Order: sequence, then structure tokens, then C-alpha cells
Amino acid sequence: MHSFEELSKEFGNIFSSRHFPDQPGSLYDPAEYFLGIGGKRIRPVICLMGNELFDVINPDTYAVATAIELFHNFTLIHDDIMDKAPLRRGMQTVHEKYGEPTALLSGDVMLVVAYDYLNRIKPGYINKIIRLFNKTAKEVCEGQQLDMDFEKQDIVQLPDYLKMIELKTSVLLASSLQLGAILGGAQEGNQKHLYEFGKNLGMAFQVQDDYLDAFGDPEKFGKQVGGDIVANKKTFLQIHAMEAGSHTQVNELKKLFSENTPDKVNKVLEIFRQCGVDSWAADLKEKYLTQAFKHLDEIAVLSSRKTPLKQLAHFLVQREH
Amino acid sequence: MHSFEELSKEFGNIFSSRHFPDQPGSLYDPAEYFLGIGGKRIRPVICLMGNELFDVINPDTYAVATAIELFHNFTLIHDDIMDKAPLRRGMQTVHEKYGEPTALLSGDVMLVVAYDYLNRIKPGYINKIIRLFNKTAKEVCEGQQLDMDFEKQDIVQLPDYLKMIELKTSVLLASSLQLGAILGGAQEGNQKHLYEFGKNLGMAFQVQDDYLDAFGDPEKFGKQVGGDIVANKKTFLQIHAMEAGSHTQVNELKKLFSENTPDKVNKVLEIFRQCGVDSWAADLKEKYLTQAFKHLDEIAVLSSRKTPLKQLAHFLVQREH
Repeated sequence: MHSFEELSKEFGNIFSSRHFPDQPGSLYDPAEYFLGIGGKRIRPVICLMGNELFDVINPDTYAVATAIELFHNFTLIHDDIMDKAPLRRGMQTVHEKYGEPTALLSGDVMLVVAYDYLNRIKPGYINKIIRLFNKTAKEVCEGQQLDMDFEKQDIVQLPDYLKMIELKTSVLLASSLQLGAILGGAQEGNQKHLYEFGKNLGMAFQVQDDYLDAFGDPEKFGKQVGGDIVANKKTFLQIHAMEAGSHTQVNELKKLFSENTPDKVNKVLEIFRQCGVDSWAADLKEKYLTQAFKHLDEIAVLSSRKTPLKQLAHFLVQREH
Repeated sequence: MHSFEELSKEFGNIFSSRHFPDQPGSLYDPAEYFLGIGGKRIRPVICLMGNELFDVINPDTYAVATAIELFHNFTLIHDDIMDKAPLRRGMQTVHEKYGEPTALLSGDVMLVVAYDYLNRIKPGYINKIIRLFNKTAKEVCEGQQLDMDFEKQDIVQLPDYLKMIELKTSVLLASSLQLGAILGGAQEGNQKHLYEFGKNLGMAFQVQDDYLDAFGDPEKFGKQVGGDIVANKKTFLQIHAMEAGSHTQVNELKKLFSENTPDKVNKVLEIFRQCGVDSWAADLKEKYLTQAFKHLDEIAVLSSRKTPLKQLAHFLVQREH
């Protein structure tokens, strides 16, 4: 068994090789540039972990893990175009550096190359792997579309927001684990529990991300607190405040989100606290984590094999207790 | 054996069913909208023809043909974004109707669904099919990128232009035929000849397209003659004129292409004629057609099985003799 850090190092070495032809450089260099600006490679590494949970690592898993990471980067390149984002990981986005048409096309070709990697695995598994990969790919696109739809809405209901986050963020984590499990010969019941572990962990992670953006310690969090509030982003916190707040609080929030005054962040945070959004978010994160670990417990393998996944979960979602 | 028209009608019926989930409609309706505005479905139908050349039609071919048509439409949706084209087949393009972010995402999800169809075929063939499909998909992206690169260049050399057209247009026709042949159990030599038939036919078709845009009879051609000249597009004719013209003619062309005077089309056509571009293009088209038929002749099946493909070639490239 290997820890996340060990597998991360190993995958990083493998993934750092070139994935595209040399020519035409005007198409493929932008794709390589984006892969080169980093990323934590969480999804491919948990694919390897999902595989090793059941057996020694099946070599085909590296190909699937690579496909997952290429897919993830393809979505980032295209999301950045849609969001008109100038920076990603502190570096220029592809469309900012090479223009939108080239960014669009580099993303397209990255998705095709992801399928090249899927096509390398043994025939016995390929149908199942592509089926789950494609289901997930469609869901991620659906999540991104819903996210864009929600930007145009004043009020988004919590169940709709949860569904969007599930599609946009959680299912790819869940599927990365399950794709590994499939290649590990796991039974369907075990696969399902591992998928649900990943999905709930993804939800907990997103709740935490929203929470830290609003209430995190700026020094520990590493970035300016309140970024989501300044950008009028829909978050777990904003959605809940609009639901739980009094008529006056909701109107005040609407007013604050319609302008950009210097004291906007503090005033919004004040209302968030009045509505009990902070403790609600902590409870919600805990709820998802409990669910995640319940599913992990249900997986019928030796408990010791689950240690790396448990450690990873604690690392991703810094549980305070 | 079936004619192009018969297979076209059959495929059209099959393809007209919905290919995407209902929800979210904001993502999938734009994709369905684009498929609904028509198209000749040439590529999927020649895939079926490439299959029937060798045997009765293998049912898996319909899935591959559908994947090919979805891939083709995905490239059109994204190309229209890159070219900022407001219309396609006389209808609003997807980005014009639904906005660029949704058009981008609808194209993405269409490519994923293309792979869903590929994943339906029997395991015995799937690796070969995805390998050729992906090789072609990458080449089409490369062709589109080169086309965009060339727009920024004053002078493009003929060999570079030929390569771009081959990648952007011809290889998808060639591969559509070969994908059908693979599913028909064709031997590799026969597959190769069929591929080359399609590639050369594609080149001949593009030369004809460029020729008709400049020298075609407006009534028969069905659209305004000289559209490429007005848009300063690189075409076979423009490339050859820049190579074959005298110093004075080349300078005059550069001047004409740098402005939009009312007599631009007539003046450019006059120089094209002086440079012998019209007869050169007729010869070039003939050269490609001869090559195409040479490869068709080499395929080791009963000559009578080749009749539908011969008829299609004559229909696509109206040979005058």
C-alpha cells in the first residue's frame, strides 16, 4: 500500500512526459503549457488509490489516471474561456496567452488524447471504463452549464445548488475512485460504496472551500478572504443565508450583492453570522464527512487497506476533531 | 448493395432521433438544435458504403456512422465560434443563438456522446476503431489550427496549403470510409486503398469548391460568386496565383486583398485568369480524381460492388467528361 504522497510523486513523474505531438506547435504547445503550470493531480492519484484498495496496482490504471487528468485540464481550459479568467494557478490562462480560438482547439484535442489513453487498456475492461468516464464527462458539462445558468438567477434553491456542485465537482472525484476500483476487479457493491465515499468527500470539500473563503484565517488560507463575496458568487453560504435570513436580511444581502462598496465583505459576513451560516456550514461539512466514512466502512476489504484513503480524506477536509 | 441516396435516407431516419438527455435543456437543446438544422450527412453515409463494399452491413456501422456525424457537427459548432460566423446552413449558429459559453459546452458534450456511440460496438473492433477515429480527430484539429495560422500570413506555400486541406477536410472522408471497411472485415491493403480513394476525392472536392466560388455559374452554384475573394480567404486559386503570377500581378493581388473596393471580385478574377489559375485548378482536380479512382480500382472486391462509390464520386465532383 502507498500513501497519497507516494503515489502523487510517482504519478507526477509519469505525467510530466509530453502527451502531444510536436507539430503543429501552434496547437499542441498551448496544451503542454497548461499541463506544465501545475495542479495537485488529486483525481488521477485517487484513481490509483481506488485501484490499490483492492489489489496491487493494475498497470492499466496509469493510463486511466492520465486520461482523467487530461479530461480535468480540458475542462479547466474551456471553463477559463467561459469565465473569461485571466489567471489560473497564478499563470496566464491558455486563452489569455494564445487567444480564444487556439485555447478552444487545444482543449478539444486534449479531450481526444484523453480517449487515446483510455484506448490503451485491456479490451476486457474498456467498455465499462469508457461508459463511466463518459457518464461523468457529461455530468461535469451539465454542472458547468447549471453554474452558468445560476449566475443569471437572483435566488437559487439549495437542492439545485447541491445538484450543481455534485455534478461540477464531486462526481469526477467519485468516478476517479470507481474507475480505479473497476480495474482492481472490485465487486459492484464495493465500487458503489467507493463512489459514494468520493462523492460525499467532494461535497464536504466544497462546503469547506466556501467556508474558508468567507471565514478562513487569511494567513492559513493563503488568499484574500471574501473573494467569493466580492465576485457575487453563489456559494453554500450565500444560498443558505438567502433561505434562512429574515426579509430585511435578504433585502440587505440583495442590495450588497448588487453593488461593490468598500465595506461589502464585512457587512455580508456580519449578516452571514447573524443567520448562523457559519455553524450551519460546519454541520453540513460534518454531515457529508460522516456519510463518506460510512460508505468507506462498508467496503469489504481489510480495514488496513483503507488507511491511505482515510488519511487523504483528513488531509483534504481538515477535520478539527 | 445500396446507392448513396438509399443509405442517406435510411441513415437520416435513424439519426433524426434525439441523441441527448432532456435535462438540463440549457445544455442539450442547443446541441439538438444544431443537429436539426440539417446537413447532407455525407460522412456517415460513406462510412456505411465503405462497410457494404465488403459485406452486408454490419449493424455496428450505424453506431460508428452516428459517432462520425456527431464529431463532424462538434467541429462545426466550435469552428463557428472561432470564425465568429453568425449563420450556418442559413440558420443561426449555436453561439449566435445561445451565447459562446453554451456553444462551447454543447460542442464538448457532443464529442463525449460521439464516444458513447463508439463504445457500443463489439469489443473485437473497438481498439482499432477508436485509434483511427482519434487519429483523425487530432488531424482535423490540426487542420483547423493551420487554417487559422494561415489567415495571419500574407503568403502560404502550396504544399502547406495542401497539407492543411488534407487535414481539415479530406482525412475525415477518408477515415469514414476506412472505419466502415474495418467493421466489414476488410484486409489492411484494401482499407488503405479505400482511405486513399476518400482522401483524394476530398482534395478534388475542395479544389472544385474553390473553383466554383470564383468561376461557377451563379445560378447553378446557388450562391454569390466571389465570396472567398471578398472575405480574403486563402484558396487553391489564391495560393496558385501568388505563386504563378508576375511581380506586378502579385503586388496588384496583395493590394486588392488589403482593401474592399466594389470592383475587387472582377479585378481579382481577371488576374486569376491571366495567371491561368482556372485551367490549373481544373487540371489539379482531375489529377486528384484520377488518383482516387486508381485506388478504388486496386481494392480487391468484385467490380460491381464499387458502383455506388463511383456514382457518389461523380455526384460529389461533377466530372465534365
